[in-house]
Amino acid sequence: MSNWINNVRWDSDGLLPIIVQDASSSKIIMFAWMNRETLEESIKQRKAIYWSRSRKQVWVKGEESGHYQNIEDMYLDCDNDVLLIKVKQEGGIACHTGRESCFYNRINMKKNKIEECEKVIKDPKDIYKGKK
Amino acid sequence: MSNWINNVRWDSDGLLPIIVQDASSSKIIMFAWMNRETLEESIKQRKAIYWSRSRKQVWVKGEESGHYQNIEDMYLDCDNDVLLIKVKQEGGIACHTGRESCFYNRINMKKNKIEECEKVIKDPKDIYKGKK
Repeated sequence: MSNWINNVRWDSDGLLPIIVQDASSSKIIMFAWMNRETLEESIKQRKAIYWSRSRKQVWVKGEESGHYQNIEDMYLDCDNDVLLIKVKQEGGIACHTGRESCFYNRINMKKNKIEECEKVIKDPKDIYKGKK
Repeated sequence: MSNWINNVRWDSDGLLPIIVQDASSSKIIMFAWMNRETLEESIKQRKAIYWSRSRKQVWVKGEESGHYQNIEDMYLDCDNDVLLIKVKQEGGIACHTGRESCFYNRINMKKNKIEECEKVIKDPKDIYKGKK
């Protein structure tokens, strides 16, 4: 693949942090990681494919849920060590909890506590029904 | 401080990735890290204070440039291991290169190359003039 990928500064585990933004609403919907293989495959397929740090395996986002993320744009930061991707989120749900976004825990800084600020759109039981 | 911070899942270096979004434009302007101390101080001061991994020290964003980030909102993700902050960026410049955002390297996925998509607003020489 091209030279720009050679300039990416992978972390000590060979991973790159990925900020995932909804291309239409500009809402931040997720944060994940890619290694070189999944980054190259993501570009090829124009679909987000991550490296799952917990499962230690390739994670094709949407493979189980149908909630694929179609990549519209990608931006590398000034230090070549973070990637921002703008996606069209199929089904409008990015979070495994059935919410639009993973960032649904708003910090109330005055009261110093968490307040949920997003509703569950679809019960996870129905999202992953019949799936492994 | 409150209990929610006790639920934060710090990485092996005791750090938390911070996604920085402009509160007005919803543009992603930066990505950085906080440890517990700088997170607590950020909340107290309502200003972004990071942990610089390269310099291994507390980094009060804007201390040298005047480009402080005033925190308007904070959101913790579903796994308690990533924080999104919405800020009012003083001076409209977040990047040390003098650009609005650090994500100015757009990946042209067809040509597989980087294209700069943001102009320098202010020469870094003038931003850090007379500063250490």
